[in-house]
This record gives sequence, structure tokens and C-alpha cells, in this order.
Amino acid sequence: MPKPPKNAISPTRAENYPEWYQQVVKAADLAENSDVRGCMVIKPWGYAIWENIQRKLDGMFKATGHENAYFPLFIPMSFLEKEAEHVEGFAKECAVVTHHRLEPDPEGGLRPAPSAKLDEPLIVRPTSETIIGATFARWVESYRDLPILINQWANVVRWELRTRMFLRTTEFLWQEGHTVHATEEQARDETRLMLDVYAEFAENTMAMPVIKGEKTEGERFPGALATYSIEALMQDRKALQAGTSHFLGQNFSKAQEIKFQDQSGSEVYAWTTSWGVSTRLVGGLIMTHSDDDGLVLPPKLAPAHVVILPIYKTDEERSEVLSYCESLQLELVAQRYDEDPVRVRIDDRDLRGGEKKWQWVKRGVPLRVEIGPRDIAKGEVSAVRRDNNERKNSTPAEFAARIAATLEEIQQSLFDRAARAREEASIRIDTLAEFEAYFAEGTPGGLAYCHFVDGPEMESKLKDLKVTARCLPIDAPEESGTCLFSGKPSSRRGVFARAY
Amino acid sequence: MPKPPKNAISPTRAENYPEWYQQVVKAADLAENSDVRGCMVIKPWGYAIWENIQRKLDGMFKATGHENAYFPLFIPMSFLEKEAEHVEGFAKECAVVTHHRLEPDPEGGLRPAPSAKLDEPLIVRPTSETIIGATFARWVESYRDLPILINQWANVVRWELRTRMFLRTTEFLWQEGHTVHATEEQARDETRLMLDVYAEFAENTMAMPVIKGEKTEGERFPGALATYSIEALMQDRKALQAGTSHFLGQNFSKAQEIKFQDQSGSEVYAWTTSWGVSTRLVGGLIMTHSDDDGLVLPPKLAPAHVVILPIYKTDEERSEVLSYCESLQLELVAQRYDEDPVRVRIDDRDLRGGEKKWQWVKRGVPLRVEIGPRDIAKGEVSAVRRDNNERKNSTPAEFAARIAATLEEIQQSLFDRAARAREEASIRIDTLAEFEAYFAEGTPGGLAYCHFVDGPEMESKLKDLKVTARCLPIDAPEESGTCLFSGKPSSRRGVFARAY
Repeated sequence: MPKPPKNAISPTRAENYPEWYQQVVKAADLAENSDVRGCMVIKPWGYAIWENIQRKLDGMFKATGHENAYFPLFIPMSFLEKEAEHVEGFAKECAVVTHHRLEPDPEGGLRPAPSAKLDEPLIVRPTSETIIGATFARWVESYRDLPILINQWANVVRWELRTRMFLRTTEFLWQEGHTVHATEEQARDETRLMLDVYAEFAENTMAMPVIKGEKTEGERFPGALATYSIEALMQDRKALQAGTSHFLGQNFSKAQEIKFQDQSGSEVYAWTTSWGVSTRLVGGLIMTHSDDDGLVLPPKLAPAHVVILPIYKTDEERSEVLSYCESLQLELVAQRYDEDPVRVRIDDRDLRGGEKKWQWVKRGVPLRVEIGPRDIAKGEVSAVRRDNNERKNSTPAEFAARIAATLEEIQQSLFDRAARAREEASIRIDTLAEFEAYFAEGTPGGLAYCHFVDGPEMESKLKDLKVTARCLPIDAPEESGTCLFSGKPSSRRGVFARAY
Repeated sequence: MPKPPKNAISPTRAENYPEWYQQVVKAADLAENSDVRGCMVIKPWGYAIWENIQRKLDGMFKATGHENAYFPLFIPMSFLEKEAEHVEGFAKECAVVTHHRLEPDPEGGLRPAPSAKLDEPLIVRPTSETIIGATFARWVESYRDLPILINQWANVVRWELRTRMFLRTTEFLWQEGHTVHATEEQARDETRLMLDVYAEFAENTMAMPVIKGEKTEGERFPGALATYSIEALMQDRKALQAGTSHFLGQNFSKAQEIKFQDQSGSEVYAWTTSWGVSTRLVGGLIMTHSDDDGLVLPPKLAPAHVVILPIYKTDEERSEVLSYCESLQLELVAQRYDEDPVRVRIDDRDLRGGEKKWQWVKRGVPLRVEIGPRDIAKGEVSAVRRDNNERKNSTPAEFAARIAATLEEIQQSLFDRAARAREEASIRIDTLAEFEAYFAEGTPGGLAYCHFVDGPEMESKLKDLKVTARCLPIDAPEESGTCLFSGKPSSRRGVFARAY
């Protein structure tokens, strides 16, 4: 096999970041474009990461009292018409089902059968507030029926012109939480609780530091009274919105007639929320940790924690080496990390050692162990960390005994590295001139903390600069200042950045 | 609250089986019809059963070497045209996407935007052989890339005129396995292996006895060379096809160009299989075990194994009773059943005791424990089995120590009861007159084992009688006989029944 280049991924991040991203997705065997425009195929390695994300989040949702359910893929067109802002936000980019049968056409192909045209077109759900709201209206009669705390794991479709795997695709996988509450306060608490769940997941499981904050009006979910998000900074110093939690007020309950009898016997509208994260998280994971040799996985989400590569020449060596590898695997899987047994693969495929090794480097497995006759003779295991390339020799027993600690060190070091990178890319800016210089074309950019007052003056300036207001951080300290864009007085700094 | 009637479900099975089924689905809070024709909402209790089904099956798929992946929801219309039988089978009942945007119409509503008509319509997948096959064609180059063993958990859409919750809905949830092999033998082995996996799951986890067999030509999957199924018998003596495994030969690899270089260097077509089970299993589960008081759940799939109902009048009693219940819960969840911690709920809702009790009866929880001050005084736990209504008193410690054994007894007794019912409803028939009498209108019917030769004579006779050939059982002994329908010689008996 050809000697690997200095770096396994070409171009490097410095050379061409967007192209580097596509090459990592390809080299790590995560996903590929499909035959349907804008839709991707999620390959087994990529899907296994998504399964780990799902399993962790699902446990957190259930631990906070939510139950899963499933609602129709289709939304009657008239449902979209009921909430004015919502339709504005989603009608422009949806897949419309108009027929329920194909028939042979005169040229010997197929065509939608004119006789099977639907009376009312159906929309493939871009999000499910309307169809779930209509269901909730039937479920809620009395305050005793509240709260309703539901989550759905599903696919959704938003017709996108420019797509990029995981980050923006026409179809994507996600979860959408939908809840109904008797009071505004309870609904606001739920919105913030789920934002906290997302932030905890991002930081503790994905090792991706995030800023929790409220979006500006222009970035709000169509129909929401308030949208909160977690914002992460990628290695190219662009921000990524990684999850959102919406306080919907009574907008959707009025549109869908979600009413209940309160304790005094009056009929009142309920308060609702919705919140979601998607396969976009995989994109964030890639862009937060990966390097010029490919994917780097935080151990808590890695489909394999350790890959063992047996090295041998003769059949006799093979049997000795394999049995040594298998006994190491047994010792390792008996250990637990992050509440699960340690995940170990032995790769005994008939491939050249170098090719095999580089496959696992590019796939981001946290620890790589090569075992040959010499290691066995020395009674040693030689393990290499993917995150920093450090090699460490120990006995198999020591290696197994320390495996959880080693994985946790890797997890922590990835978080620390990402937090440092974010720190280095963060700045406080107090004048518009500085702001314009910071985000001028060709500059690296980053996270700029600035005083602001939400409004059209700000929006139009930001648009010119191709910068977006990411959020008003929840923990932003009170501090008097002046809006960079309007000169109006401001009491807290928001975060601004170029964004995905 | 009104006193419950003699039976919680009205009508009873004997009075009106199809209506009883709908009432059980409703009373057990499993699902409801949605605002989209033919699509259902799967409610939390129903979805939790599906999650348990998924978790078990997913483990079995992975243990047999399969990996999960995800493929597009949409299939370009031209893909369906490539496999002639396949298009014949699925073009008649599919949702067709023709536009990618809505726009305001002159009446103030919405309409599909004429300017956003797709060049090629997209079909919402009714099954994914064509789109997955096109992907596999890119993945396979050499015999070294084989086998490919992939599973997908997904939603699919088949436009159905008459729908019934879980059994036949326009959208349903399922898994579809898709595999590619180098040789016919390997593909045939895979087809049979997955049939065995389904049968093992049905019998051991669902407590639902099944017959494994091959379908007749008329019942084959469109495009398959052989279709195998597991067939179960419902309590109304109608059969339910509960899972299928297809040997696709080279039909789809030829249509999709799945070719590879074999060991001799020649380019040859691969051999493929596909196999699936769906939310229909929940329908089978209901109709196999439930009774006139509602759902009866096999413990291995029950979202809760035990429900504890605290009974008290005063606040003082409340605190004593609740703490007793919580300590019982702790003892129980420390026990394991079927590899998981025992699942226990305490229902402390502010509802009348009778209403609460009957809710859990109707939801099918295997064990129900009511705990009041008198039980505490006696140091007792009084548990009632849902399957046979037996009450048993024991100390909390004894109850906890025996919980896994008790659940296994329930699991086994449900299987035994279903197996006995099937045995009683099975018959060997050797003449057409007997067959016609057995399946005459108004008769109970059942499973008839008969000699047969597949062909149009049989098909037309069966159609008249509204009976279907379920399968040729795999373990059917060799036995010489005569086809009931054609008089031709036959060497094995097939199974015939009315069916869902």
C-alpha cells in the first residue's frame, strides 16, 4: 500500500476547511451523498455514533419525565395555514405529496395517476408542532391531564438548496420534544430545563463546550415567543447552533385549540414548548475534535473505544497472537466506562497492517493497540492515543485496570482543548469599527461579545458583514454599555459570529 | 366512578372480535387515529412496547453480525421502474411527492407552487430495496467487500384503503434488513438465519408461537425468488403474517447493477436478501394474549413488570404507605429479569382506587400490587397476576426474591396458553369438501394442514373461500398425498387459514 502522506486527510484544515470536512466524512466512512438530491446515506460508522447520541439523550429525556411517542410523517396542508408565522417559516421548503398512486405513462414509464390526486396535499413534516398540537388538543381536558411531556425520534424534511452532510440535508434525523403546561411559568421552566439537558449532553458527552443563550428575534423559531439555543465554536472559528428549545407561549395552543379546564373551572389555553437536536450534532462533533488525520471521537460516543490490531506472519504466530488479543479483549470488556462495558474490536481482516492502522486513525477510535509476537514475548501492550498520538506500554492487566481512567483522560482532554480553542477565539468588542475589522473578509473571525439592542439597524449591519447574532448568553453579567449598531443603551453583551 | 362492568372491554371477543380489538387498543392507551387518513398516533404506552421490541431485535441483529445504517426516505420514481415485478407490487399504493414548495393561493390559502414542480417525482419509500440496492452497487467492488449485512429502522408508507391500527396503516414503523452475498448459498443461509431470528423472538420474547415456512408464489414479495414468513394464529382463529425474509436471488442486483470481482477476477452479480418486521407485531401481541378485560402483556415486553398502587385515607397513612411502596420498589428494581432490572411503577395519582386499578388491568401490566395500612400491619404484599387473576400473599422480601421466577412463569404460561389455542384450532384436512365445510361462511375456521400443489387452480378456489395459503412449513414431514385443489400428487402439507 502507498505510504500515507504526512497527513491522512487532504486538504488539511488550514488549506481548505470546508473541503477538509467533506474528506473527513468520507475517510471516516460516516456518510455519503445518495441518489436523492440533498439526502445522505448514513453509513454504519456514522450511524453507530448517532445511536450512541440517541441512547444517551433518550436516557436524559426519560430521567426528566418525558415519554416517547410517534406521530404521522404527513401534515395536512391546512394545518400549516393555522399559525401564520409558522407557515411563513416552513412553506417555502417542504416536500409536498399530491398523489397516492403511480400508473404507466404512454412512454412505458410511470407517472403520478391523475385519478389518484389527493383532495388536500400532504406535507412531509419539516417539524411537528401542528400535527402534534392537534393530537394534544384531544388529550387535554383538565388541568389534571397536564403536563404532557412527549418526545419523538423521527425523520424530517426541509427542502434545502445548498446541503452539506450532517450539517444541512434535505432529510435529517432528529428528536423533537413537545410539551403542554398549565401555566406560563411551568412552560418557561421546561424550555430552560431542556436547554440545560442539551448543554450538559454537549459538554459532558460530546466534549463540546457550548454557550447557552436566547436567540434574537430574527433567529427565533417561526411561531415561538422565545428561542434558546446552545452554540458551539468550530475549529474554523465559525459558530454552530447545536440545539434549540422554544417557548411557544399560547401561539400553537390557540392555533390548535389546546384548551383545558383549570382548577377554577374556567376553560383556558395551555402553554406549550418544543425542543430538538438532530444529526447535525454529528457535524458539530466532527468539526470540534477532528484533525488532519481524520475523525477524533470523544470516548463517550465512540462506537469502539479500543481497536486491537493483531500482527503476525506465520500461521503459528497467528494463532498465538489472536489468542493473546482475545484474552485482552475479554479483560477490557469486563471493565466499564460511562456506565457501559468497554467497547473493543479486534480487526483481523486480511489487509496490510499500515492500511488497517490508518483506517482506524481516520475513523477516530480513541485507543489503538497493535499486538505482535514481540509484544507477547515482552508481556506488553503498546497503546496509542488518537487524540495526542502518545504511546504507552504496560502489561495487559495494567492496561485493562486503567482503561476507564485512560478513556476519561481522553474525554477530558478533548473538552479542554476545545475550550481553549474557544477561549482563544473569543473577544470583547466595544466599537463598530473594531467589529467591522474583526469580521472583515479574509479575517479568521471568532466569537465577539458585544453590547447590542435587537432591531432592524443591527440586523441590516450584520447582514452586510455576513455575521450573525448567536445569542444573548443566559449567564451574561449585567454591565452597562452602548449598542454597537444603534448607539442605544444596553445592559448585557451578546455573542456574534460567522455561523453554519 | 362507575362500577366497572363484568368485563372492562365491551364488546367481548366472542361478541365482536374486530371491535373488541379496537377497544383494547383504546382502553390500553396504545394508539389512536390521527388527522391524516390511515396514519395512527402511537401513544406512550404503545410506543414503549415498540421500543422494547426494537431493543431486543436490535440486539439479535447485532449478535448475528448486522450493522444499522440509514437511507433516504425518498425513492426517485425511475428507480421503481427498474424491477418489473417490484413496481407492479408497489406503484399502486404509494405517496408521491411532486413539489418542493407551497405558495399562497388566490383564496388566501396555500397551494403547491407550480414553479416548484419536481422534474422527477419522488416516492415515499414503501420498502427500500431499490434505493439501498443503488447504494450497495457503489459499496461493492470485490468479493472482499462481501457480505454486506445492513439493517435500517425506519418509517415506510403504503397507501392503504382499509386500515386498522397496528395491523395495517398507511405509515408504519419497521426494520428492514438488506444484505449482499457472494454466493447463492450464502444468501439463502442468511434468509433462513433471519427467519430463525424472527421465530425465536416471536416465541421467546413475544410468547407467540409461530410456524416458519415458505410462502406460495402468489404471496411472494414482489421481485423475490422465495419468501419465508413466520405465521401466528390469533384468538379469532385467523392467521397473522408476523415477519418475512426474502431471498431475492440476483433480481435486484441485476436491476441495480450490484456487481463484484470474484476470486477468479470475473465480474459477477451479487446475491441479495431482505427481511422485515413492523409495528404490526404490536397488533399480533394484542390479539394473541389479550382478554375481555384488555391488554395482557408478556413480561419480556411490558413497559412495567409491576405496578404498585398505594392505598390510604389520611396524610399520616399516606406517608407510611408511600415509604413502604418505595422500599418495595427499591427491592424489586435491584432484581433482574431477562437481563434487565425489573421495571416497577408506583401510581400515586390522585384518582379513585378502582379507576386506577382498572387502568392498569386494561394496560396489561403483568403484576399488580395494592398496598394499604392493613398490608403493612401484616407485613405482607398482595400481588395479582394479570394473566390468570391469581392473588398471592407473601412478605416483601419473598416477593422480591421470587420476582424473576414469577415473571418467567407468566411469560411461559402465556406461551403455553397460546400454543394450546393453536393446537385446538389446527386440523389436517384431506378432501376439498371437508376443506370447504371447514372454511364455510360462519364457521370458526383455523389452521388447516393440507396437501397442495401451488398454482392457479388452488389460487382461484382459495379466493372464492376467502382462505389463503399461509406457508409450506419448513419442518413439514415428507408424506405422500394429493393436492386438494388439483388432484396432483403432493409430498408435503401446507397450512391454510383465513388471515389478516
